[in-house]
Amino acid sequence: MTPLEAREHFRTEARPTAGFARGYAQANLMILPREDAFDFLLFAQRNPKPCPLLGVLEPGQVSSDLLQGSDIRDCVPRYRVFENGSLVDEPVQVFDYWRDDLVTFMIGCSFTFEDALLENGVPVAHIENDCNVPMFRTNVATEPAGQFSGPLVVSMRPIPAGQVADAVRITSRYPAVHGAPVHVGDPSAIGISDLMSPDYGDAVPIPDGTIPVFWACGVTPQAVVAASKPSFAITHAPGHMLVTDARDLEYQVP
Amino acid sequence: MTPLEAREHFRTEARPTAGFARGYAQANLMILPREDAFDFLLFAQRNPKPCPLLGVLEPGQVSSDLLQGSDIRDCVPRYRVFENGSLVDEPVQVFDYWRDDLVTFMIGCSFTFEDALLENGVPVAHIENDCNVPMFRTNVATEPAGQFSGPLVVSMRPIPAGQVADAVRITSRYPAVHGAPVHVGDPSAIGISDLMSPDYGDAVPIPDGTIPVFWACGVTPQAVVAASKPSFAITHAPGHMLVTDARDLEYQVP
Repeated sequence: MTPLEAREHFRTEARPTAGFARGYAQANLMILPREDAFDFLLFAQRNPKPCPLLGVLEPGQVSSDLLQGSDIRDCVPRYRVFENGSLVDEPVQVFDYWRDDLVTFMIGCSFTFEDALLENGVPVAHIENDCNVPMFRTNVATEPAGQFSGPLVVSMRPIPAGQVADAVRITSRYPAVHGAPVHVGDPSAIGISDLMSPDYGDAVPIPDGTIPVFWACGVTPQAVVAASKPSFAITHAPGHMLVTDARDLEYQVP
Repeated sequence: MTPLEAREHFRTEARPTAGFARGYAQANLMILPREDAFDFLLFAQRNPKPCPLLGVLEPGQVSSDLLQGSDIRDCVPRYRVFENGSLVDEPVQVFDYWRDDLVTFMIGCSFTFEDALLENGVPVAHIENDCNVPMFRTNVATEPAGQFSGPLVVSMRPIPAGQVADAVRITSRYPAVHGAPVHVGDPSAIGISDLMSPDYGDAVPIPDGTIPVFWACGVTPQAVVAASKPSFAITHAPGHMLVTDARDLEYQVP
């Protein structure tokens, strides 16, 4: 499936996008009014691990070279609409919510380095289980910017103990899509009480001999919206990403 | 000299900062009214090679952890003040120009990787000659954002032919401070007619056996201000940088 085919496909099937259009970068979405856009862009600049920006559209712009032939309002499997920090809708397209002052931020997603993990023989549990990656709110604060602040959200992958070093080494080469893990091991150290009850996505088994490894997650902005309560925001639904035309390899550093 | 000592020193001596407070990152400055700040932050996001952001202050903020104990209005050897794109003053402090809506952008500087070049035996001509690095406007366009557009500015270092690969390899590890060169060799290919007449800084000798190597430069925003004519802007004078408290090594990738 090409990225364009994937975006067309996900106009009508509302399911998580992990494993689709392998080799192409997927992106988290944050769409905000122009008046809030500087603060959010500053938030992203100050929090590059959870919010690495792959692209930002001008106010009102609905397509770009990252999604050629598609419209940002109808190319993600499912969206979330927030008013004053509260989730008010989870539609499959957002034409009715669109305004000409909306600025779209596309944020890197750890799905990009999953291909590299798999190619290097490091298992990725939620792909093996064909479900959404488990994500957790932590007690680690992000760096505030203007009106925006809130907790860091992380994704979790159980990694065999002998391959943790490989997972660190491989993902370090992708700083534009969350990069190296932010935490290895004890979930309670970052405020996670139960790995079987993720705040977003699906639980995955944690076999004996594996260690939970945590990466900064592009769902962080959604927790920040809930905490900071901007008047209006549109995001993707967690795990239901924008499949972009950019190749994963473009985000690899030497 | 510690970074704080350097900033104190440069309150009264208006000279280029290359080679001072070795091991600490120096930064380019761009200070703009809040109303222009989103467009410029977007410009930086879209042009990470010339405009890698090391930090952004909130509107009206005059210090931060990058310049502890100093005031951004009086810690750079010389500033430049622009009105509607025209240079109107080159003061040594900017208290009289300050406004509470001004947003300060600190942009990475290639001086950061010069220590790494020197440590690896790659000569840096303007340090050997104790002068400012030569900088040139090119015919390469930056990626526009909102009201901002303009030409890429590059810094040039003549590198012995046998060490060009080393210079590329070493500087590639510093993507936050311009990273790998944007051009190696023929200056006319990027619109530079005379290497002995830099647009900013000082000319340096180009000995036989060396090749001119060009890196994206943090003076690019000044060329963009000249082209885009925002109502008001303050920058550093080229080569007269902010010496920050961040260590060069913080910006090195594996």
